[in-house]
Amino acid sequence: MSTESRILCPALQQRVTTAEAAAAMIPAGANVGMSGFTGAGYPKAVPGALAERIKAHNAAGGKPFRINVLTGASTAPELDGKLAEVDGIEMRLPFQSDPICRERINNGTMNYADYHLSEVAQYAWSGFFGKMDIAIIEVVGIREDGSLIPSSSLGNNKTWIEQADKIILEVNHKQNARMEGMHDVYYGAALPPNRKPIMLTEPGQRIGELYLRCPIEKVVAVVETNAADRNTPFKKPDDASRKIAEHILEFFDREIKLGRLPKGLLPLQSGVGNIPNAVLEALDSGPYKNLTAYTEVIQDGMLKMLKSGTLAMASATAFSLSPEGIEEFDKDIEFYRQKILLRSQDISNHPEVARRLGVIATNGMIEADIYGNVNSTHVMGTRMMNGIGGSGDFARNGYLSIFMSPSTAKDGKISSIVPMVSHVDHTEHDVKIIVTEQGLADLRGLAPRQRALAIINNCAHPDFKEQLLDYFERACASGRGMHTPHLLNEALSWHERFEQIGTMKPNA
Amino acid sequence: MSTESRILCPALQQRVTTAEAAAAMIPAGANVGMSGFTGAGYPKAVPGALAERIKAHNAAGGKPFRINVLTGASTAPELDGKLAEVDGIEMRLPFQSDPICRERINNGTMNYADYHLSEVAQYAWSGFFGKMDIAIIEVVGIREDGSLIPSSSLGNNKTWIEQADKIILEVNHKQNARMEGMHDVYYGAALPPNRKPIMLTEPGQRIGELYLRCPIEKVVAVVETNAADRNTPFKKPDDASRKIAEHILEFFDREIKLGRLPKGLLPLQSGVGNIPNAVLEALDSGPYKNLTAYTEVIQDGMLKMLKSGTLAMASATAFSLSPEGIEEFDKDIEFYRQKILLRSQDISNHPEVARRLGVIATNGMIEADIYGNVNSTHVMGTRMMNGIGGSGDFARNGYLSIFMSPSTAKDGKISSIVPMVSHVDHTEHDVKIIVTEQGLADLRGLAPRQRALAIINNCAHPDFKEQLLDYFERACASGRGMHTPHLLNEALSWHERFEQIGTMKPNA
Ligand SMILES: CC(C)(COP(=O)(O)OP(=O)(O)OC[C@H]1O[C@@H](n2cnc3c(N)ncnc32)[C@H](O)[C@@H]1OP(=O)(O)O)[C@@H](O)C(=O)NCCC(=O)NCCS
Ligand SMILES: CC(C)(COP(=O)(O)OP(=O)(O)OC[C@H]1O[C@@H](n2cnc3c(N)ncnc32)[C@H](O)[C@@H]1OP(=O)(O)O)[C@@H](O)C(=O)NCCC(=O)NCCS
Repeated sequence: MSTESRILCPALQQRVTTAEAAAAMIPAGANVGMSGFTGAGYPKAVPGALAERIKAHNAAGGKPFRINVLTGASTAPELDGKLAEVDGIEMRLPFQSDPICRERINNGTMNYADYHLSEVAQYAWSGFFGKMDIAIIEVVGIREDGSLIPSSSLGNNKTWIEQADKIILEVNHKQNARMEGMHDVYYGAALPPNRKPIMLTEPGQRIGELYLRCPIEKVVAVVETNAADRNTPFKKPDDASRKIAEHILEFFDREIKLGRLPKGLLPLQSGVGNIPNAVLEALDSGPYKNLTAYTEVIQDGMLKMLKSGTLAMASATAFSLSPEGIEEFDKDIEFYRQKILLRSQDISNHPEVARRLGVIATNGMIEADIYGNVNSTHVMGTRMMNGIGGSGDFARNGYLSIFMSPSTAKDGKISSIVPMVSHVDHTEHDVKIIVTEQGLADLRGLAPRQRALAIINNCAHPDFKEQLLDYFERACASGRGMHTPHLLNEALSWHERFEQIGTMKPNA
Repeated sequence: MSTESRILCPALQQRVTTAEAAAAMIPAGANVGMSGFTGAGYPKAVPGALAERIKAHNAAGGKPFRINVLTGASTAPELDGKLAEVDGIEMRLPFQSDPICRERINNGTMNYADYHLSEVAQYAWSGFFGKMDIAIIEVVGIREDGSLIPSSSLGNNKTWIEQADKIILEVNHKQNARMEGMHDVYYGAALPPNRKPIMLTEPGQRIGELYLRCPIEKVVAVVETNAADRNTPFKKPDDASRKIAEHILEFFDREIKLGRLPKGLLPLQSGVGNIPNAVLEALDSGPYKNLTAYTEVIQDGMLKMLKSGTLAMASATAFSLSPEGIEEFDKDIEFYRQKILLRSQDISNHPEVARRLGVIATNGMIEADIYGNVNSTHVMGTRMMNGIGGSGDFARNGYLSIFMSPSTAKDGKISSIVPMVSHVDHTEHDVKIIVTEQGLADLRGLAPRQRALAIINNCAHPDFKEQLLDYFERACASGRGMHTPHLLNEALSWHERFEQIGTMKPNA
């Protein structure tokens, strides 16, 4: 590892320093914009050094030292975990999936604001989050003119660099230098009334630049690291995931036959997680060739599809690979760099582009109700799981919006189909298709009571089907409104029961 | 009224017939696409004649005669009212506001599917609603080549004409012939993967054609009418509306000072109703000049603003004027036709355009909860009021999304701020500002518990404030999740109480 090999800009070579020295430049109360998206491309050293500083400060007593952390999306233990552990985060946005953050959010010691990922950059630009003090951005290298070779995620990096008063760069020698050239950083964004159309009409089209522009004078520190991304292992698809994938493939088949979907499908958007990955695997063993992806994240499944030719190219804002995935990627990077483009998240998730391309949006959910409202974020109505992420960007604007989940959770004690969801992230107006291992409910063109029968009959687990029908029938017979029949005093009783006796089943 | 003056196409002069003869061409079970948007430009004769036919059919016994009615948005008694009265509607979409329809929807004798108004055309094109059998479209006139001069709304007319097997035209001699030239019908839409950017960057820009293309061979009947649009009178702004408007103007002022809103604001979108109209009146007496509107509907308030110069131009898909409004419009049509453009609703409400222009979205609501979720459609969780309309198109994609309501309804017995909304149309991720006559809550950048305090303190009515705070505090103390604290067994109890004892107040 030599500094010169990755930092070609002489002025910035002068600013190489330690993570501790860089962390010392961050004042309490700062708004800090960090790189990082689904465990890729986040700063690996400075957040930890800052956490140490906060810990020491807090041990000495006095006013608590906290910062506001804005990222692309979720990061990793070295960032969210370490800062949350020392109670160093006042406000976190727009997405997280860290166990320690989650605990603090849910015990009330950390504020969390959960945003559509496409909207974060525009809100920052509009000044809705206040002034950005410092940006901490991981890069693969610094070019002679000070421009930056982006790392394994682009996220909101462009915005943070432009908005922050001061910039701290982490140059990560572990990231494959051959990622250079895989990015497309769009510099045509503006605030209204000066916004122009985004002239992107195909997932593979370039509309931007290869590098992040960076005003050298704002860079206050450059820190060198040599650390891998989070790279969470994937589980092999289980039975439920495989069945969900089968239902979706059958559905695609039928839609193609009906002329409602082109033979080559439409650009795929795939949420993160084991079920979306199983859908990708199933697609890969299907009849498809030369599909495209316009999505947030490149998972293992997409690498396989690129290799097999099922997928011709994939556009995203970040990687989210397993350890084997990253090994495969590194091994064959000359192949993958021709097939993958990383964009800023305001472009990868842009409503304008998602709608124009007509993405097929497939995302996980926590629960759906019988009328087709979906909860992606809250367990039992009060506890945050991760956040809405990009699911709303794609579900609202996609050609098809599919939400999927096993029909039960927690060893069958929880039904993922409930009378009324305990929190709504995607309304009945946006949810078009619901899939569980039991089957698929196609809600397009149906009124609420018709949807209820489709969802209960096709998606609910047999253990809960009668109980759901019973609720629905009694709601219909109650003399209240028949548009969306509900028994208000029972609508959330399944969740309540689970909290009280540990199961949603009635006769437990 | 002479046929020749409005129907210049000789072939179509031949097809002039009676409403009864035209209605006879509509078979039971047909999918019928009708013109009409907020009580403007709907067919005035054929639906009523069809209703008579259905009534006679049903009186004779046999299988019920029903059709599916797809429109732009709401229509009027001559269409929705008459067909609903004879139980002639099987499925209604995407919006209605008719008292008889509403009754049928809520007693379970009519199906209703409630869609974002921008999405209806694309779903129809994608085949999600099935085949379109017949279009019934009101026009101002028919040109020599068979092309149509659109009427006081464009709505989904272009789509229905293109999709339907057969077309029935109503030529309404009452509509001002000088509306010719006020329309902009965009013919660049396509389904993915062939969609192109919509090159609209200013509210006043033309991107389409003046007339609706119409294949003469599909026209099976032309019916002449001479009837005014619904033209519902406006109430004078009451005290609550005026206060809501004041809070919004103060807010704009502050945002401009903070540099977060341009001095000339951004294109206005204004929901239909008395409160939005009061906001327009207030804007008109403010310091603004040369504003623009990119909205669904032209209300009386906008005519006044155009006259005074507060508004330079307005783009919409329909008129929604009072009887005095229509008089003023007719009187000065040479002025207004220079300042108003009517577009198809897939363009007037297009997410791509609303986002690009950065509209300021102001819409009414039924209720909001303490965490910022908004219910626009359901009374007490089960009964449909009107529908989501365009509120989601604009709220999700606008630069600012403002929801407004008096803080109470039904003589103070209902609080519009509740612990948990009984139905969600706009999630916490999309609602940025809530306003009642009590004040304004700016939710941008806040976590849920922070939002709760802002909403309760600024927006709730004094009669309900303590009760809301009490709920919030007990939810926080309950030991459940602190991200969005709720007491599941009480969350909907306010609505329940209203249904049981006629008030949400506890000690009634
Ligand atoms: C909804 C979401 C959490 C599901 O995650 P997943 O990994 O596909 O699904 P899993 O079945 O493994 O569930 C994850 C956890 O939620 C729990 N869970 C799932 N359904 C549940 C339910 N109905 N009630 C309570 N808990 C539930 C599971 O038990 C599991 O908990 P554990 O980690 O303690 O075992 C995930 O898709 C998500 O965060 N979505 C929102 C963001 C998003 O959609 N991004 C997509 C754009 S990239
Ligand atoms: C929400 C909506 C119904 C409010 O309408 P409005 O005319 O501004 O407000 P009003 O206060 O006059 O309320 C209308 C009715 O709802 C009732 N209402 C209002 N708030 C209520 C509440 N919290 N609970 C029960 N009823 C309520 C009123 O009592 C009134 O009933 P009435 O007609 O029997 O007297 C209306 O804005 C709407 O339909 N919105 C959805 C569509 C939309 O937003 N379109 C905008 C894009 S153009």
